[in-house]
Amino acid sequence: MQQVSVGLVGLGTVGAGVARILTQHADRIARRAGSRIDCKWAVVRDLNKKDRRAEFEGVRIVDDVRRVIDDPEVAIVVELIGGIDAARRIVLDALAAGKHVVTANKALLAEHGPEVFAAARAADRAVAFEASAGGGVPIVGAINVGLAANQVQSLAAILNGTCNYILTQMTQEGIAYDAALAGAQALGYAEADPTLDVDGTDTAHKLAILAQLAFRANVKTADIPREGIDRLDLADLKYARELGYTIKLLAHAKLAGGALELRVAPSLVRNDAPLAQVHGPYNAVRVVGDAVGDTFFHGRGAGMMPTASAVVADLIDVATGRALLTSRVLDFWSAASPAVPLLPSSRSLRRNYLRFLIADRPGVIAAIAQILGARGISIASVIQHEPAEAVGDEPGPVPLVIMTHLAVEEDLREAIREIDGLDVVRAPSVRLGVEE
Amino acid sequence: MQQVSVGLVGLGTVGAGVARILTQHADRIARRAGSRIDCKWAVVRDLNKKDRRAEFEGVRIVDDVRRVIDDPEVAIVVELIGGIDAARRIVLDALAAGKHVVTANKALLAEHGPEVFAAARAADRAVAFEASAGGGVPIVGAINVGLAANQVQSLAAILNGTCNYILTQMTQEGIAYDAALAGAQALGYAEADPTLDVDGTDTAHKLAILAQLAFRANVKTADIPREGIDRLDLADLKYARELGYTIKLLAHAKLAGGALELRVAPSLVRNDAPLAQVHGPYNAVRVVGDAVGDTFFHGRGAGMMPTASAVVADLIDVATGRALLTSRVLDFWSAASPAVPLLPSSRSLRRNYLRFLIADRPGVIAAIAQILGARGISIASVIQHEPAEAVGDEPGPVPLVIMTHLAVEEDLREAIREIDGLDVVRAPSVRLGVEE
Repeated sequence: MQQVSVGLVGLGTVGAGVARILTQHADRIARRAGSRIDCKWAVVRDLNKKDRRAEFEGVRIVDDVRRVIDDPEVAIVVELIGGIDAARRIVLDALAAGKHVVTANKALLAEHGPEVFAAARAADRAVAFEASAGGGVPIVGAINVGLAANQVQSLAAILNGTCNYILTQMTQEGIAYDAALAGAQALGYAEADPTLDVDGTDTAHKLAILAQLAFRANVKTADIPREGIDRLDLADLKYARELGYTIKLLAHAKLAGGALELRVAPSLVRNDAPLAQVHGPYNAVRVVGDAVGDTFFHGRGAGMMPTASAVVADLIDVATGRALLTSRVLDFWSAASPAVPLLPSSRSLRRNYLRFLIADRPGVIAAIAQILGARGISIASVIQHEPAEAVGDEPGPVPLVIMTHLAVEEDLREAIREIDGLDVVRAPSVRLGVEE
Repeated sequence: MQQVSVGLVGLGTVGAGVARILTQHADRIARRAGSRIDCKWAVVRDLNKKDRRAEFEGVRIVDDVRRVIDDPEVAIVVELIGGIDAARRIVLDALAAGKHVVTANKALLAEHGPEVFAAARAADRAVAFEASAGGGVPIVGAINVGLAANQVQSLAAILNGTCNYILTQMTQEGIAYDAALAGAQALGYAEADPTLDVDGTDTAHKLAILAQLAFRANVKTADIPREGIDRLDLADLKYARELGYTIKLLAHAKLAGGALELRVAPSLVRNDAPLAQVHGPYNAVRVVGDAVGDTFFHGRGAGMMPTASAVVADLIDVATGRALLTSRVLDFWSAASPAVPLLPSSRSLRRNYLRFLIADRPGVIAAIAQILGARGISIASVIQHEPAEAVGDEPGPVPLVIMTHLAVEEDLREAIREIDGLDVVRAPSVRLGVEE
């Protein structure tokens, strides 16, 4: 049986998982790849940090990536260091040296997809990236191959396990954001600096990738309007739940009248929808295709072995030769693709959850309803919740929750601005979209 | 751009859907296949039955399959006639003539997988079968490619949309089986003769296929213990629901101590498990892999366009050349595969739902508990329900529901036999397994 030599760049959590599958299950992998996949090299940043030779017998552990790129025996370079600049250099150098590339690097693809795939085409090599979105959920293959007969109409996804874990804790245990984040960090579900997760950037990276696959959209992360979960108030999760909704951090993409709507934001999902049932550090993707209708994919979003599962699936796909055929045909991030225009976020149309903190006085609801009505925004329901504690003689302010029917974003923004300017409104309002 | 000519054998619901995608979305399909997929031929049984030339412009509609098989231009034959004997002949003839084959025929693969794939290997042609299990859910590709790094540990699936529609109606609307079946027939979800659906045969065909993919098991349908939904009593759905479970017709496969447990049976699924949330004519598959953990795939299980979506995905996979690479490597139904022994059903271990109809008299529960206990079967809970109407002076019999802890199947069968022989037991008992 033929042998395919692989160089792993990065031997962190995922890299170690990949090395473990390749060494402990070599026969199984060979049977499915049609050749023995030999993990010949592993590149680490600091050779002195930890002696890992015993753990990965037969793997040459070095700190110089050129050893891998200059080795003519190596057919596939696996980039697992994350980040953008160094990873970009390694991927481009590997392609220039005639290697195929497997990467889990969503930031790299989201920011430099066109450059990476132009280099892949020039070298006639595959870049495989199943692990870059959805963790262990094989969503990249599902869109590229399994659902290839379809024009995807819309896509809604939970793509960040850290955020979903935090939201699940907040929803199920009634814990506030800061405490839930601290718990996630203690369990290893959130990093010491969780900014890129909780502010929606990581989700936007992954959405940029899925939008390329499903819609051939060539968007950068900065093109995607995004909100994180870091300013979510526990009260809104509770009020939403009373209305029959769960709040999830969603990546949303939808074709609407020839334009593509993209967004990352905490959104209300009906409790009985599959996305609302995604708990803890899981990921899930709902894809609606014009032929297949709605499909739903669910699994672990991150972690050592689930991500390694996706990376090794890519190694097998490259070793069989399939990945190169896919790369050649699908022309990822090609300038030749017809560009899908993005829908300006001001034009997006959706139902909304609004919460105002108002003075407990007659006429306030009427004033708010009048401002919404003047901009053509219909109200589906109004619930006035229990007031906060009184301050002296003045009764405490009252949370007022309004669900709207479909509203155009810019009309809604103007209405909210006007409402927030009323002297009976006690705090900036909260607005969350509803995912249909 | 190159052209690939296709012959469709069968122009029923799914065939018409395939022709529609190929003709109405030719450019899209070409972009993803790397060649134009031309639907050159469609073979129907009776040319006089319906004139379909206007509907499928450019497609030559004939009633002789040899026209397709003898056409050297045709590269791919799509078999969509269903059934076994004629379909087998067409598939083998097409392979012998050097064509690739796409088929949605689960019965054919479940019964003649070894012969079909031996012929494919001899001809070095691909047989692609995404539509044979799971309808629009791309589960075949997920197991073969997306999860290829894993040893699948277990699989639990809803694979028959007709049964799931009927069970959903029974559960949600409280309709008895016969009425729910009639409703499904009226809506086109069930055929005039629904036997193969409702008795579990269709699910067993699909499980035989998934068991080959996930475990390299070479089983015939007859090897799979199966029960259908046709004898389910509404009362059991209701009692199960009160205990926190939903009853679904499940295909179940699990590696246990080196042996493979296979089963098709109505089973209790916890209400909060994703499989319990699968409603109406949908299919879903839960796959647990050793690296990825648990994954879940959900979508429409049948119908014109969802199934056509899977068939056209296969056409694209064949046209790109990927399907042949997959066929060559994965060696489907090969005699060279190491055989996985099947676990005898008498040795299977699971929790159970038991319902007895007993005389409303002191000591009966103790007698039943004693029989179970004598065979080492522990009781998790006992609920005595409202009695049926009295008959004369005799009080009506009482339904007694017992949930057991894990029990070995043959112990349980013996205990049930003994209990059913008690003179205080008024009807044969009901037993349903619990899916963990």
